[in-house]
Amino acid sequence: MKRSLGPKTVLYPTPVLVVGTYGADERPNASTAAWGGICCSRPPCVTVSFRAATLAHANITLRKAFTVNVPADRHVREADYFGVVSGRDADKFEVARLTPVRSTSVDAPYVDEFPLVLECRVVQVHELGLHTQFIGEIVDVKVEEGCIDETGTIDAGRIAPLFYAPVDGHYYGGATRIAKAHSIGHEMRPQ
Amino acid sequence: MKRSLGPKTVLYPTPVLVVGTYGADERPNASTAAWGGICCSRPPCVTVSFRAATLAHANITLRKAFTVNVPADRHVREADYFGVVSGRDADKFEVARLTPVRSTSVDAPYVDEFPLVLECRVVQVHELGLHTQFIGEIVDVKVEEGCIDETGTIDAGRIAPLFYAPVDGHYYGGATRIAKAHSIGHEMRPQ
Repeated sequence: MKRSLGPKTVLYPTPVLVVGTYGADERPNASTAAWGGICCSRPPCVTVSFRAATLAHANITLRKAFTVNVPADRHVREADYFGVVSGRDADKFEVARLTPVRSTSVDAPYVDEFPLVLECRVVQVHELGLHTQFIGEIVDVKVEEGCIDETGTIDAGRIAPLFYAPVDGHYYGGATRIAKAHSIGHEMRPQ
Repeated sequence: MKRSLGPKTVLYPTPVLVVGTYGADERPNASTAAWGGICCSRPPCVTVSFRAATLAHANITLRKAFTVNVPADRHVREADYFGVVSGRDADKFEVARLTPVRSTSVDAPYVDEFPLVLECRVVQVHELGLHTQFIGEIVDVKVEEGCIDETGTIDAGRIAPLFYAPVDGHYYGGATRIAKAHSIGHEMRPQ
């Protein structure tokens, strides 16, 4: 039996995306995006949504570039901090004791200690209401060597990503592999 | 040390979103979206991306509505099936032995057996390249009673969502709560 809850932003899992930007003063900033995710395969694109009042919004609008940094679950405190404090009030990299590194392919910094980074240049911007959606073309992906398995592929389990659960109000982690994608579904086809 | 992988669609976690639509012939269809996620808080909006060649794309374009259905991890086989077979070649609800139910608020069916449903009407459409991004305003959320805790809130752990891991090529599940959101980050603020 289903209960109707009315209109709400609820979906599981919701990724925790720390977005790296530079301001007009060259200061690096890291902000946890309200929302985001991959949105196109070719060209590879990712979206991040921010309110117009945020420093991340101002920086992305100015520099037309950002990085998406995926924190490991051991960085849950830092990832939450990047979302609850404004870069206008603090040097968040310094407080979090994390290291901004200039991207090689776009005009934005990434978080050195996080295992996965997407370097993006802005290709579309959409006003949706409270949030602006920035669509970034993924120009390069950088991943920690330790998260690559013996076959040369990323092992998502080694990334150990967090997810955020809206309404529920918690972060989750520790997921494990349960099935091979684009494969197990074929078992349902009539023989 | 980070390794550069070039441009790729990689992000963790990526949600597994089964999208319900009706065709011109009223036939219900369920297709796993290539990509998607929440993108705006007010109005509450979610995006799903499909290739122009898909039945889901045709149906959403025609009916201006869709549902987003979140499968529990026990439905990994059905969720994968909905992504590897076209609704033009099979009655996917019938093969998967799942039940299409007409939404109360939009012109689209939902999957009765899945724990969480977002009923959406299309408000924006963006051509990104290989994929079209449909932005749906969430008109209603429906959740299984058993996923609501004693305080009346959704417990994401009871939903037991899957996530898809691009490049890695597997589904993951079994995540557990690790911290309270918009809370643990305050511990980093200088006292």
